[in-house]
Amino acid sequence: MRIAILGGDGYCGWATALYLSSRGHEIAIIDNFARRHWDFELGVQTLTPIRPLPERLAVWQQLTGRVIESYVGDITEYDFLSSMIGEFKPDAIVHFAEQRSAPYSMINRKHAVSTQVNNVVGTLNLLFAIHELAPDCHIIKLGTMGEYGTPNIDIEEGFITIEHNGRKDTLPFPKQPGSFYHLSKVHDSHNIMFACKIWGLRATDLNQGVVYGTLTDEVAMDEALINRFDYDEVFGTVLNRFCAQAAIGLPLTVYGKGGQTRGFLDIRDTVRCIELVCLNPAKAGEFRVFNQFTEQFSVLELAKLVQMIAGEMSLNVEIDHLPDPRVEAESHYYNAKHSRLSDMGLQPHLLSDALVNSLINVALRYRDRIDVAMFAPQVNWRTSRNQRRAASAMGRDLVFAKESL
Amino acid sequence: MRIAILGGDGYCGWATALYLSSRGHEIAIIDNFARRHWDFELGVQTLTPIRPLPERLAVWQQLTGRVIESYVGDITEYDFLSSMIGEFKPDAIVHFAEQRSAPYSMINRKHAVSTQVNNVVGTLNLLFAIHELAPDCHIIKLGTMGEYGTPNIDIEEGFITIEHNGRKDTLPFPKQPGSFYHLSKVHDSHNIMFACKIWGLRATDLNQGVVYGTLTDEVAMDEALINRFDYDEVFGTVLNRFCAQAAIGLPLTVYGKGGQTRGFLDIRDTVRCIELVCLNPAKAGEFRVFNQFTEQFSVLELAKLVQMIAGEMSLNVEIDHLPDPRVEAESHYYNAKHSRLSDMGLQPHLLSDALVNSLINVALRYRDRIDVAMFAPQVNWRTSRNQRRAASAMGRDLVFAKESL
Repeated sequence: MRIAILGGDGYCGWATALYLSSRGHEIAIIDNFARRHWDFELGVQTLTPIRPLPERLAVWQQLTGRVIESYVGDITEYDFLSSMIGEFKPDAIVHFAEQRSAPYSMINRKHAVSTQVNNVVGTLNLLFAIHELAPDCHIIKLGTMGEYGTPNIDIEEGFITIEHNGRKDTLPFPKQPGSFYHLSKVHDSHNIMFACKIWGLRATDLNQGVVYGTLTDEVAMDEALINRFDYDEVFGTVLNRFCAQAAIGLPLTVYGKGGQTRGFLDIRDTVRCIELVCLNPAKAGEFRVFNQFTEQFSVLELAKLVQMIAGEMSLNVEIDHLPDPRVEAESHYYNAKHSRLSDMGLQPHLLSDALVNSLINVALRYRDRIDVAMFAPQVNWRTSRNQRRAASAMGRDLVFAKESL
Repeated sequence: MRIAILGGDGYCGWATALYLSSRGHEIAIIDNFARRHWDFELGVQTLTPIRPLPERLAVWQQLTGRVIESYVGDITEYDFLSSMIGEFKPDAIVHFAEQRSAPYSMINRKHAVSTQVNNVVGTLNLLFAIHELAPDCHIIKLGTMGEYGTPNIDIEEGFITIEHNGRKDTLPFPKQPGSFYHLSKVHDSHNIMFACKIWGLRATDLNQGVVYGTLTDEVAMDEALINRFDYDEVFGTVLNRFCAQAAIGLPLTVYGKGGQTRGFLDIRDTVRCIELVCLNPAKAGEFRVFNQFTEQFSVLELAKLVQMIAGEMSLNVEIDHLPDPRVEAESHYYNAKHSRLSDMGLQPHLLSDALVNSLINVALRYRDRIDVAMFAPQVNWRTSRNQRRAASAMGRDLVFAKESL
């Protein structure tokens, strides 16, 4: 199968590209290195030292004999996107090429606007390009569980059957996203649903949970294939942050009460889900939505788990509750369905003590690269002009002061 | 009250500005004349010869002694928008400043992208500007009944209480918009709801039906104050098209079966609704949604009504059914609630024979300005590259041929 991975140099995209390549598919990576650029902008770096894409691909070819093509460019530029599709002729396109950080989108107006324009225009371009050049190509779009927010009813997979005043219909599940980033994904979902309806496109929208883990079998083959490990307050995810904090003996920082409950999954399940979806495409005109996660945890549950495993490794850490910089319910009902990918054959890797142990070990290995100024939340949802750079510089001064003690 | 009308040179905006000015409010019109520009782009013009804004405003001042301020600029440019708000200090902002034609958004990719970027970025800028400069200012946003689509259940006003698996919540009503334009309004609604939640803004989203009529008391005061009357296939609305067709003896063109049912209202009710909403603002943090229409009609019902009234005026016209250029249900259940504005005091002007008669008379008066090439639908939802210009030029040749007979 010919599969194009938009955003294939990023965290999920890279693991997916290697996995699908190892399974015998013809892969192209499309990327403009926006993710690497945002690291420069924010003054942060992945804990793991990732290599430039050409080096990654050369090593992959040396190890496996398999070639992954690369197209460097921006999918918000239609000429670039359409020429790639015309040339590569994909059977499926996996679309990871979006700005994916909620805090990034909440820094200020420019970041909110650039997130929504980048994500919405990229996806619109993709819909038009598929319609015009590859109408049978299956679009696999990464959405997010955050599209649903935290309603007081069970969350279904994309649609809900509603009985109302004696009549009944199955309608898109109501969305209550919690950041300008999450909103952009809701906008995308509506746009894709419409394109499937009017043009008969086939699309699967994967509302993914929070992904954890760095290692897949492929990434583990060589240090040069190492994947990202983001722990900073903007692009880092909560489990990574806790493991990095534990590795250097800092308190685990829980926002508010920590009752915020979300869906989570191992990156090994992300890549397997994408494969399952590629092998079982949506029908022409069909817009499917799968909830792509395997377990629910509250933030405080994860903190306690990391605290326990760290303790077993003789890393004794406290749990600190910080004021929540986000506007969100700190405790709430949460029960999200996620059976469709299991029905298709997913065998989940549930979060184990061993996995948390391995994540802490990754953090220990690269502890010299940890910038402790990057833990504290600097983007407050209630403010529209977060002075992130200044705050970061201040934080860095504090580190230097601390180090000089 | 100090009220800023974004898009105040357009059809609804102009009528609203004059009405609110006549009621003693301090009014500013903000406009970049995008609507006039789209007429040039499409090679069409309003049936009624509207005057340039400075002339309109000068005549209004001569007639009433009332000054309406004007700010010429584009709200997608934040510096312009924020300086206007800082200077005018509005108590309420009525936001009409969006690309509002479904067919325009469906011409091709560029028009889809420009519609969504223009509408979404303009509204995002407004939210940030209000938060930063005028946090108590009431945002009155024009949405559309088209956000809901045509579900098989009753349409509520913005929110619906859902019982599901033994639990209950009141959630945003599911949206199934039918064009890239209607989608842009859904995106806006989600963005505004979020901004109210995180920043405590006060907003009213008016999901307006199709507006008809040209005359309000204010517009009728002088020929120089005349409002738009769009009858073309891109910006024209169905009742206007039928009246223009009837005036020159052409068949009334119904798309498909004509069972498409929508909410409609008289422009005199639009301006009154806006006033009611200004006088009864949303609370801080509240995101309200009102369905702003007074009656439901199917397209075929309207065609038959116009045919009957035209007949009484000795204008005998046929009804033609054309293939529907849109992807939509040609007959469907439709029952949309619209009690909240009535509860607030709206006394609707229901569609009367006299009103249809007066619209046909407007069309008769300006019949020399009717371009018959502009009636036929040229934008097909199923195509992503509608060659509108070429088709229009061909149509125009046919007109010339007909006129030379």
